[in-house]
Amino acid sequence: MTRIKMIIEYDGSNYHGFQKQDNAHTVQAELEKQLYRLTGEQITICSAGRTDAGVHARGQVIAFDALATIPAPRWNAALNSLLPGDIRVLDSREVDKSFHPQYQALSKHYAYYLYRQRPGAVFYRQYAYCLTEPLDIIAMNQACEPIEGKHNFLAFCASGSTAKTFERQVNRCTVKETGPYLILDIEADGFLYNMVRIIMGTLLQVGRGRTAAGEVAGIIQSRDRTKAGPTVPPQGLYLLSVSY
Amino acid sequence: MTRIKMIIEYDGSNYHGFQKQDNAHTVQAELEKQLYRLTGEQITICSAGRTDAGVHARGQVIAFDALATIPAPRWNAALNSLLPGDIRVLDSREVDKSFHPQYQALSKHYAYYLYRQRPGAVFYRQYAYCLTEPLDIIAMNQACEPIEGKHNFLAFCASGSTAKTFERQVNRCTVKETGPYLILDIEADGFLYNMVRIIMGTLLQVGRGRTAAGEVAGIIQSRDRTKAGPTVPPQGLYLLSVSY
Repeated sequence: MTRIKMIIEYDGSNYHGFQKQDNAHTVQAELEKQLYRLTGEQITICSAGRTDAGVHARGQVIAFDALATIPAPRWNAALNSLLPGDIRVLDSREVDKSFHPQYQALSKHYAYYLYRQRPGAVFYRQYAYCLTEPLDIIAMNQACEPIEGKHNFLAFCASGSTAKTFERQVNRCTVKETGPYLILDIEADGFLYNMVRIIMGTLLQVGRGRTAAGEVAGIIQSRDRTKAGPTVPPQGLYLLSVSY
Repeated sequence: MTRIKMIIEYDGSNYHGFQKQDNAHTVQAELEKQLYRLTGEQITICSAGRTDAGVHARGQVIAFDALATIPAPRWNAALNSLLPGDIRVLDSREVDKSFHPQYQALSKHYAYYLYRQRPGAVFYRQYAYCLTEPLDIIAMNQACEPIEGKHNFLAFCASGSTAKTFERQVNRCTVKETGPYLILDIEADGFLYNMVRIIMGTLLQVGRGRTAAGEVAGIIQSRDRTKAGPTVPPQGLYLLSVSY
């Protein structure tokens, strides 16, 4: 039995999220189905994190145990030849039996993309949140500052969370304009359910002038979900990488 | 009766091309269906050019006659509110009754996108031709030179063409690297059936070293389709704009 760690990317548009569910087309189910075709083994994979329906990954990390004696670098090509074009294995390696992609993650890096031009929106409708209204980017960056650091993020957690604690350490939270995009770049030791999408929704309220940048520290302290902004749609969200 | 000219963009991924056909989901059929919902009129639209299944447009031009007395700038929002997210009207204006989007086009501008990195390919599989093999870009640009000018392009025309003449004036043909993309930029007074995709296929053969850049002039002169390269897939092709 060898434990294989893979870095994978996927276009989440056509999946009901990462995690296996009954009667739903999910990234995990697709991977396990193709691993079965490849090895004949009923393999259950673990991932660094679940992603919701429509959310994308550029660097999701998965791990699984297999009896198959496929050299680690061969897994890439073997599995890619079976997977549909919207899931790709970028890297495969053999890891120690103690490795777990979720429990051992030190930090996760996400980006949320807004696409702010009218022309071109047809190509981004599944890959960004297309919004053309004017936004105060300076205020949005001011609102990012109190989010950095160690806080209880209950105000930024959707109901349905199974988290035991709501304290997370946000190492970096910035918003930057790059061509037609406005990108939220956020890294933390972990994220609560919908946390990035609620942070982006709150920053948008600041960008629109409906919430003052100075109010954000108070919203965090309130631990009250109703004080934060709305949850923005999934298609702008990308899991970029996981650090160990 | 007023004649309306529109500039539209569409993601061609889910369409069997632009032109209306029996029992096929096409861009034209979708536009005419929504124009009927909006006006109650059976409107037939003309376009600057047909695009094949999977081919995209950033600046397709259409025109139609309508009895409806909708002010020209209002057509945008009215039609966009009915159209699916993969077709957008970018501009609408009233034009002279003599305007025809195809017959009066002076030139058309296309781009063909290659995506040359392995990471990220899941997001470009419908929006570029994903190819990671090494290519000699200098040779490809040398091969572009003989394509510019007025030539008989029969060697670059797929069978099934209804063209009466095969002479076209190519005003510009260049290949340039921009980040992970290699982009063919080509403008001409008109294009034969699959002409851009066959030119790109021929340039790729040059980039791979299978055809010498110096052979391209002879391929044009041969008027022999079998001498040119293969037709590259549709999803890399974009109709950028039409000039009048």
